[in-house]
Amino acid sequence: MRHYAADMAHDAPSMRQALAVPPGPVVLAGYDTKKAPRAPAPKKPKLAGSEAQQLRGLQERLWAESTAGGTHSVLLLLQGIDTAGKGGVTEHVVGIFRPIGVQYTAFKKPTPEEAAHHFLWRIRHRLPTPGVVGVFDRSHYEDVLVPRVHKFIPESEWRGRYGEINAFETEVAAAGTTLIKCFLHISFDTQRERLLRRLETPDKHWKFNEADLDERARWADYMAAFEDMLENCNTAVGPWYVVPSDSKKYRNWAVGELLRETLEELNPQYPHPDLDIEALKKRLEPPN
Amino acid sequence: MRHYAADMAHDAPSMRQALAVPPGPVVLAGYDTKKAPRAPAPKKPKLAGSEAQQLRGLQERLWAESTAGGTHSVLLLLQGIDTAGKGGVTEHVVGIFRPIGVQYTAFKKPTPEEAAHHFLWRIRHRLPTPGVVGVFDRSHYEDVLVPRVHKFIPESEWRGRYGEINAFETEVAAAGTTLIKCFLHISFDTQRERLLRRLETPDKHWKFNEADLDERARWADYMAAFEDMLENCNTAVGPWYVVPSDSKKYRNWAVGELLRETLEELNPQYPHPDLDIEALKKRLEPPN
Repeated sequence: MRHYAADMAHDAPSMRQALAVPPGPVVLAGYDTKKAPRAPAPKKPKLAGSEAQQLRGLQERLWAESTAGGTHSVLLLLQGIDTAGKGGVTEHVVGIFRPIGVQYTAFKKPTPEEAAHHFLWRIRHRLPTPGVVGVFDRSHYEDVLVPRVHKFIPESEWRGRYGEINAFETEVAAAGTTLIKCFLHISFDTQRERLLRRLETPDKHWKFNEADLDERARWADYMAAFEDMLENCNTAVGPWYVVPSDSKKYRNWAVGELLRETLEELNPQYPHPDLDIEALKKRLEPPN
Repeated sequence: MRHYAADMAHDAPSMRQALAVPPGPVVLAGYDTKKAPRAPAPKKPKLAGSEAQQLRGLQERLWAESTAGGTHSVLLLLQGIDTAGKGGVTEHVVGIFRPIGVQYTAFKKPTPEEAAHHFLWRIRHRLPTPGVVGVFDRSHYEDVLVPRVHKFIPESEWRGRYGEINAFETEVAAAGTTLIKCFLHISFDTQRERLLRRLETPDKHWKFNEADLDERARWADYMAAFEDMLENCNTAVGPWYVVPSDSKKYRNWAVGELLRETLEELNPQYPHPDLDIEALKKRLEPPN
């Protein structure tokens, strides 16, 4: 059984190392949903203020660099059971970046057109272009989760998809996109509390779907599907991170840290075109 | 010559009335770029805090309503000369809303594929679906501006486009989309200051393009093109607003107010599905 050794994770030299899934079989019960590796005690972790400003600056540089030929992009991919916080993370993260440099996609139940194509077809259409941070709220991983749990397709088919996904992500990475794949991990009990809160707030009833409870009844099946996904699609170019998500603040902050580390490593630079500043200023002088 | 009578605009019962372009010929010189109609003195106008929260709440209701069959959407369309603040407004506005309910599009120089189609083709692809606030950073109005000023097309062609645009917007409105068309209005001198600031900040040089100065040299031609656009495409379903934009804070706040008034008038409601709360809560009880 592999999981983070709590203290080791806390002392890890980077958030990516702290939350990375080690190679080999994954047992999610071994990943504590309440842990907060590398949380900046005694300060509370929070994706706001200077953390947000820093991310915003890095993303502006990524975008700026792409306007002068830079080819890098980033893809933040979020998976997790209902109420794990995919929507919450995207709101925080997307809200920080400049609209021009971020592309958000919520993948829902495939439309008839999407379903008529290969499962990666709709994903390819939404890959980030150079300079852009793409955010996937669900992704191609849905195709090894829902159809597996509901037995819509035979085991051979969903098992075959792992290899297709790995080949696809290798191609995406080779094109200049750094992948950050996050599994937002909450406990069975936290999901209960969050669903209960929706039931207790009339203005949140529209978010409630009785089918969510049928899915919750398949918790163990979903966890097995997540474990296989984390084990079989955990590659050098597409590593998986398990983000403890019982605390919303820690979850948002941790994803922000994964983004920050990634962008800092890419180290994008503002282009400095060779402008004849004085001549240009002259052209801007007020007309006589 | 029609323009806002400053005091009248300040006392107008709504922001939409204060900034609306009256029917008839438009002379932009008559619209003061430094005016601040309805600004909440002595407080400084600012799109933040409670104003932002209110907008966020309204937009959530618009989105929520659409999940239960609501058909309304909003389209905020921004035009203005270089440095007028289209990017600044979108950042502020888009940053407020939940990513799931906002769709931002920056229309740039048409790609070869776009140019091969009718000029409204790429616009149709990005219209907001029910529940969504669409934000257009430039739009189909570019097609009666740049090609006119540069004489890429004969006058008969750009003149003919006004009617096509009006017919198109009538269709868009009939489908449930409320249009908010804003012309961000700055003075020649404010543009000079903003371009100068870019030149004086090395990390902003990447935003500078010498061609921007060639466009600036055509200021009068652009103003004439804007005036014709404001006059000829100012319809009941697609009214134009002239937003004084020499002050960035006022500009952002004013656009926020136009959005707020529009959303309040649509008055979207959270759906209240008929849930058997007690039975559902029972299903959520912890297993024994």
